[in-house]
Amino acid sequence: MQTHFSLQAEIITIGDEILIGQIVDTNSAWMGQHLNAIGIWIHQVASIGDQREEILKALQNAGERVSLVFVTGGLGPTRDDITKQTICEYFDDHLERDENVYRHVEKLLGSRGIGMNELNQKQADFPSKATIVPNICGTAPGLRLEKDGTLYFFMPGVPFEMITMMEDQILPDLKVRFSLPAIRHKTIITQGIGESLLAEKLTNFEDQLPSHLSLAYLPEPGSVKLRLTAMGEDSGQLESDLESQATLIRNAAGEYIISEKGKRVEEELGILLKEKHATIAVAESCTGGYISHLLTSISGSSAYFKGGVVAYSNEVKTSMLDVNQGTLNQYGAVSREVAEEMVIGVKNRLKSDYAISVTGIAGPDGGSDEKPVGTVCIAWAFADKVYSECFHFGDHRDRNIKRASTAAMAFLLQAIRKQKSILC
Amino acid sequence: MQTHFSLQAEIITIGDEILIGQIVDTNSAWMGQHLNAIGIWIHQVASIGDQREEILKALQNAGERVSLVFVTGGLGPTRDDITKQTICEYFDDHLERDENVYRHVEKLLGSRGIGMNELNQKQADFPSKATIVPNICGTAPGLRLEKDGTLYFFMPGVPFEMITMMEDQILPDLKVRFSLPAIRHKTIITQGIGESLLAEKLTNFEDQLPSHLSLAYLPEPGSVKLRLTAMGEDSGQLESDLESQATLIRNAAGEYIISEKGKRVEEELGILLKEKHATIAVAESCTGGYISHLLTSISGSSAYFKGGVVAYSNEVKTSMLDVNQGTLNQYGAVSREVAEEMVIGVKNRLKSDYAISVTGIAGPDGGSDEKPVGTVCIAWAFADKVYSECFHFGDHRDRNIKRASTAAMAFLLQAIRKQKSILC
Repeated sequence: MQTHFSLQAEIITIGDEILIGQIVDTNSAWMGQHLNAIGIWIHQVASIGDQREEILKALQNAGERVSLVFVTGGLGPTRDDITKQTICEYFDDHLERDENVYRHVEKLLGSRGIGMNELNQKQADFPSKATIVPNICGTAPGLRLEKDGTLYFFMPGVPFEMITMMEDQILPDLKVRFSLPAIRHKTIITQGIGESLLAEKLTNFEDQLPSHLSLAYLPEPGSVKLRLTAMGEDSGQLESDLESQATLIRNAAGEYIISEKGKRVEEELGILLKEKHATIAVAESCTGGYISHLLTSISGSSAYFKGGVVAYSNEVKTSMLDVNQGTLNQYGAVSREVAEEMVIGVKNRLKSDYAISVTGIAGPDGGSDEKPVGTVCIAWAFADKVYSECFHFGDHRDRNIKRASTAAMAFLLQAIRKQKSILC
Repeated sequence: MQTHFSLQAEIITIGDEILIGQIVDTNSAWMGQHLNAIGIWIHQVASIGDQREEILKALQNAGERVSLVFVTGGLGPTRDDITKQTICEYFDDHLERDENVYRHVEKLLGSRGIGMNELNQKQADFPSKATIVPNICGTAPGLRLEKDGTLYFFMPGVPFEMITMMEDQILPDLKVRFSLPAIRHKTIITQGIGESLLAEKLTNFEDQLPSHLSLAYLPEPGSVKLRLTAMGEDSGQLESDLESQATLIRNAAGEYIISEKGKRVEEELGILLKEKHATIAVAESCTGGYISHLLTSISGSSAYFKGGVVAYSNEVKTSMLDVNQGTLNQYGAVSREVAEEMVIGVKNRLKSDYAISVTGIAGPDGGSDEKPVGTVCIAWAFADKVYSECFHFGDHRDRNIKRASTAAMAFLLQAIRKQKSILC
């Protein structure tokens, strides 16, 4: 796919805090996404420490490979930020005070009741050859410099300062400066099928895929993301190419598709429930509130999510969800029978249109030969109907909780879609 | 601190999805943190695409600079993963089938009711010179290879597979293999104070800190992790250095300390409840099940966690938690009064010894001048006593949910600790 891109870039993030994992570098992901979206391919991302030699080497190497280099970090006022001096060295330049920036810093700090000290004053010193990219969110502006036909952008490491700079100034500048290819993505979320099985189902699809399109698999616990990318001249054509290819994926693996808009199952479920002006309630044992958390992670979910009961102990299953003690005794807490009584209980108690329930053994303890760790029973109910199924996931507690949660929502989602298509 | 480190490593993360920002590379941060913790300094992190030439170049360059290279990504079964073939090329090797891995994959997939297909079979093929690092969590194992005195570790890109491999096998292996400097960490979890305010309180502490110790701030939503690192020869001495320094931190900011063992608040709370053979129940509105999720993320939590009610709608607050309609009308759902009735309701209904409740406006909608987005009321109850407080967090929905959840647990934790110290 890379070969389609005429314009290639590299990203360099500077800071020891990245190397020792004190912070996760989210800047390069943001830049990659937004540069890629306008047709610039990121050839490499490099994170390096706050050392002069490292910075010089990184600038040198990137400049030899690509014609665009984006650098974040090391532009703050504190003494461990040696980037500006190193930039001067690399571009054979010297620092000069910029009066506009000086007044901007003075004003900004003044508004916070802070006076100018020596450190702040230094923030107005820049390589004389640099074009200054104003920073409306902070004190340290960005810099644009050129060397041997490569364009370098230096930005602060603070994410929202970098993002504002890119959105308001650098990305528009790049669109004007270069004639960029059109590029479009389509992200399809699948669930209930592993990466390798899905790949098997899509073998023929991949064989026929036109060369200006590409498919990537992005596995996550309990779900596989498919990213279809199209690149060319005519963006309208690319859109329709993606649509017709998506149809082929639908034909090959439609029953596993949760979303063709890259939305998570809780988002798609929420959209559907909103459309139907319907409500949902959740009864959770082994998922321990995670389904409720995912549903309420969507803003506006109060429109359809009434609430839930986390019935971790059997006592709570009987007292709050009206599960019969007899059913618990006869079938055990992890059984289709109990899952069904849980889902009926929460649907009645919370007076919701739809409901889901999960009971299982997340692990690592609590397993038996008959019901090993990872055994999970899921039930979903609507319109006086109750459905349930039991599964065996894995041995990993955290993963079992996540997989059971997304699976439960996926079953209800697909059931509502079927119901919908019957009604239509 | 870098100068203390004799052994240097580089990290290479492979995958177009990283370059186009479809996923944030959290693997390198995790590896950086944990390698650094055993005395290995990360010299550089490079993220590259799924292209043969790029992989070859990256392996070559890293090998020239450092004696340890950690590579993640590109070991899955699907066709966009070309790493294994490229490894053969780089190490001048060929693929051979490993019968043990073949049986492992067969067994793992079998347990999920999946048969072997051609793609899965390929997962058992490896460079003949490679030492296989088993993957207990997934189908693709890790590989260890050596070239020109540099040791290369190849791991899957799926974070929890990489983490398990590193924790169980690679990190212990490295500790044996190399004479690493004695290095000790003490991680102190604080809550209820921002990074900059905490740093201010610790200014004098940092000034007196001996040069062989260092302090790192790792801020997370609602909590700041302090990592105190000591490096030298005599590990016993380092331990006692850490303890005496920890005492100084306790003197400067003790009231904010949740854990001195690096445990999250839900872990510390669980330990305390287990000690007391006591139980807990949770009533959640705006946190939407996240507190229950955190409490049940700890294995063995069924010993003390009875369950909870997610009362997202007022209707559920009255029907499932016995909140008075009058209280809702008079004070509104987001009020100390409602929080207190919620906590009493859940404590009585679920018959628990301790209980916490949260009601608030997570946002982005639902705010008013009187009660803006981020207003959260928290109550905690035990021994016939009820306590409550209201706060204003921020505008960010996800952060508000996380901060309110950890704050609620922290209040109960501190209250139980006080109660304990009174009894003792």
